[in-house]
Amino acid sequence: MYKDRIRLSSLLDKVMSADEAASLIKDGMTVGMSGFTRAGEAKAVPLALVERAKTNPLKITLVTGASLGNDIDKKLTEVGALARRLPFQVDTTLRKAINDGKVMFIDQHLSETVEQMRAHQIPRPDIAVIEAVSITEEGHIVPTTSVGNSASFVQFAKQVIVEINTTLSTDFEGLHDIYLPEERPNRTPVKVLKAEDRIGSAAIAVDPSKIVGIVFSELRDSPSNALPADEETQAIADHLIAFLKQEVDAGRMPNSLRPLQVGIGTIANAVTSGLVKSPFTDLVQYSEVLQDSTFELLEAGKLKFASASSITVSAACGERVFGNINAYKDKLVLRPQEISNLPEIVRRLGTISINTALEFDIYGNVNSTHVNGSKMMNGIGGSGDFARNAQLAVFVTKSTAKGGAISSVVPMVSHVDHTGHDADVLVTEIGLADLRGLAPRERARAIIDNCVHPDYRAALNDYFERACAKGGQTPHILSEALSWHVSLEENGAMLVK
Amino acid sequence: MYKDRIRLSSLLDKVMSADEAASLIKDGMTVGMSGFTRAGEAKAVPLALVERAKTNPLKITLVTGASLGNDIDKKLTEVGALARRLPFQVDTTLRKAINDGKVMFIDQHLSETVEQMRAHQIPRPDIAVIEAVSITEEGHIVPTTSVGNSASFVQFAKQVIVEINTTLSTDFEGLHDIYLPEERPNRTPVKVLKAEDRIGSAAIAVDPSKIVGIVFSELRDSPSNALPADEETQAIADHLIAFLKQEVDAGRMPNSLRPLQVGIGTIANAVTSGLVKSPFTDLVQYSEVLQDSTFELLEAGKLKFASASSITVSAACGERVFGNINAYKDKLVLRPQEISNLPEIVRRLGTISINTALEFDIYGNVNSTHVNGSKMMNGIGGSGDFARNAQLAVFVTKSTAKGGAISSVVPMVSHVDHTGHDADVLVTEIGLADLRGLAPRERARAIIDNCVHPDYRAALNDYFERACAKGGQTPHILSEALSWHVSLEENGAMLVK
Repeated sequence: MYKDRIRLSSLLDKVMSADEAASLIKDGMTVGMSGFTRAGEAKAVPLALVERAKTNPLKITLVTGASLGNDIDKKLTEVGALARRLPFQVDTTLRKAINDGKVMFIDQHLSETVEQMRAHQIPRPDIAVIEAVSITEEGHIVPTTSVGNSASFVQFAKQVIVEINTTLSTDFEGLHDIYLPEERPNRTPVKVLKAEDRIGSAAIAVDPSKIVGIVFSELRDSPSNALPADEETQAIADHLIAFLKQEVDAGRMPNSLRPLQVGIGTIANAVTSGLVKSPFTDLVQYSEVLQDSTFELLEAGKLKFASASSITVSAACGERVFGNINAYKDKLVLRPQEISNLPEIVRRLGTISINTALEFDIYGNVNSTHVNGSKMMNGIGGSGDFARNAQLAVFVTKSTAKGGAISSVVPMVSHVDHTGHDADVLVTEIGLADLRGLAPRERARAIIDNCVHPDYRAALNDYFERACAKGGQTPHILSEALSWHVSLEENGAMLVK
Repeated sequence: MYKDRIRLSSLLDKVMSADEAASLIKDGMTVGMSGFTRAGEAKAVPLALVERAKTNPLKITLVTGASLGNDIDKKLTEVGALARRLPFQVDTTLRKAINDGKVMFIDQHLSETVEQMRAHQIPRPDIAVIEAVSITEEGHIVPTTSVGNSASFVQFAKQVIVEINTTLSTDFEGLHDIYLPEERPNRTPVKVLKAEDRIGSAAIAVDPSKIVGIVFSELRDSPSNALPADEETQAIADHLIAFLKQEVDAGRMPNSLRPLQVGIGTIANAVTSGLVKSPFTDLVQYSEVLQDSTFELLEAGKLKFASASSITVSAACGERVFGNINAYKDKLVLRPQEISNLPEIVRRLGTISINTALEFDIYGNVNSTHVNGSKMMNGIGGSGDFARNAQLAVFVTKSTAKGGAISSVVPMVSHVDHTGHDADVLVTEIGLADLRGLAPRERARAIIDNCVHPDYRAALNDYFERACAKGGQTPHILSEALSWHVSLEENGAMLVK
């Protein structure tokens, strides 16, 4: 079996246990690990590192593509092994350590992490740990369910550990398209002109002498935790699809729309699922992650092609797709996240980008990351890479949270991730606000009238009217602008009746 | 003389007075006018429109490249002719009308206005008014001191008025490089690989039958109003140049640096001038506007080439450069602002982008536009196009304003234009904070220690320490976060002793 998975025979003697591989990771190192949206992360080696840290403490800087599964961030946090973490995470335990100031978390646009490494602006990895299905005759690495930042980590690291996941078929080879931009000043255009264009190689190139360990693992990706659509997420999907129909009818886009980017999570999944019954045809995705809904669309004949950096699906969908990957390889490509999220390509293609907001304000500024201004949830992820450059930047959220104690539409957001310049359309289950070409006072009218829960509408109108009386392009009463958030902290509700 | 300026003879009978041309602009129209950073705007026609509006009122939507000179925005505002204005302005009278809610102002990233028109997301111009030095044999339009959005306005408008400025030589032909991206989904890469690459044509293509009027004018651009460097702007320049030397010494960029983008204004001009005495050589600019300092650098042999969308210089510099434009044509190119500011190219080249902040906060969020959160100054301009995609995004400001009553470094900015994700380096006359790879709490330490005026340092430290005690990735005390701005409104100073 080794020879099927390690086709360069000179590497066969690098096979070792996960414990041995983990011992190559030293205190103080910057470690680049595969993994994006809880897909394709190295598993056995970091879990062995957790065990080792229990008796032999160490602190590392952990850089990944995005979030990890298998509770790896949780376990590394619990043993105190994380000094610094970038560029994204979704784990409850790590989140608490971040918000307590115990782990330094650098929240980044997902296209930019390896760009900053390339320019030596942040440390390059000392060691890379990459999940693979196989190693080719050249010693090159064939990734699994995500590409993330793996190709650059391998290029930049002094040492590479490959973790071969034998639960996934070697047929994954050919699914990926590995292309990295040149160093400046000799950078050339990245010639992805359509979502389906392949411009790179099937495996991650590496000097085989850098491979210092090969570990075999039988651990699977954690299944997706997206919830089924509920009445509110369905309403959000319905509003957005009705709007897209209008766009097609007005001649602003064809019936195949524009390439779709859909953020991860329950609402985004519901929106994509909603397209199964839509009149649109020949859809394509140019996204960072593919969820179950992508495969629903493919199987319904609605979707022609999907490009992303990872596949994060339920156990049932994973069995169907990963168990028969050859049947999907002509309709899918997985790319480095620097390419899946590259501003150059997003702007060229003119994606429709649908991402989730924590809250937005009456002027269309969006908070994607910080609960009540201070506490990190997950990170900005790729939402900025896409929203800034999309043809249509859509943000979605339910109009309220915590049983109505929180309005997702507020006078002023407590933290800004996306400015009003970058938000074209906002959608809640109440309705949709089309902000294109509107000045801030007009945006406020559209948002309050269309997106706000009725329980909060009068209070927002009152704030807006009094602010307008004070004046300004973006009228605010600064002594009140954050008072809803202060009330939430003090009283457990934004408005106290 | 007409035949020298209008080389397509069938257009000679389109010559008319400015009054006649202005009468083609009707109430309710969207008008696309040339002009970018007070350079190359149509002058005679809008001034004739002002006169006409005094007796024959009308309201238009005015779209330009950026700001206009010759008090055109002021005069159009005074006669009540502006219903809507985009994407940028710098005029005091118009600013007041905007802040009073009398003119709807749509503040946009300067690369995006015509992209939104192309996608029919905002109205295309009914009529375009474009300043030119001449019309070619094909009827194509040779612009003057800026390109701005003129090429797209001409492409999109149903009617075109050309205003020929006879104070500028026909030798301007060959200075410009006119290239426009294709409509989606057939967009191809924009093949500017170096600042000096020319990829388009020397004149703006147009079906000559769309040219409905040609007006001659002898009005000049308003001269630059950048002030000479003072002690503080000189200190900002010195801090930044010392930092760039470190970057070169550390091997992160060559001694020719990266292509420089420098925003308009006094501080930016001082920084560029400071490079004359620096050790750097073979510099290039990939910018949106060129100021006097560009020509100082050129003449000092420091600068090899400069690409931009406009030239905004003092009267003396204008006489030197525009009076002898042939001597500069191999070292300069003017492009459509969509290309000078295109994320694709900015990221490919990896510019060093230096833009002015109104204020920034202890976590590195930047306010470029709104005084005390509500009142618009000018607009975001191209700062977002560049800062998001630059290799090094620098924001500069003096540490205080209004004789010390205002700190430019605050607990929380009152408006966000650039998030902490997009700010690499912040500079005041006090010092420089290098934020690359830092988590928010670390950024706060770097900013407070390096950039804050001593009069405000203790108060910011106190806020930061108490906020950290509450916790969070980006610790804030929301009930106090904007209190400095509230105090400024109520007491005329951010801190009352």
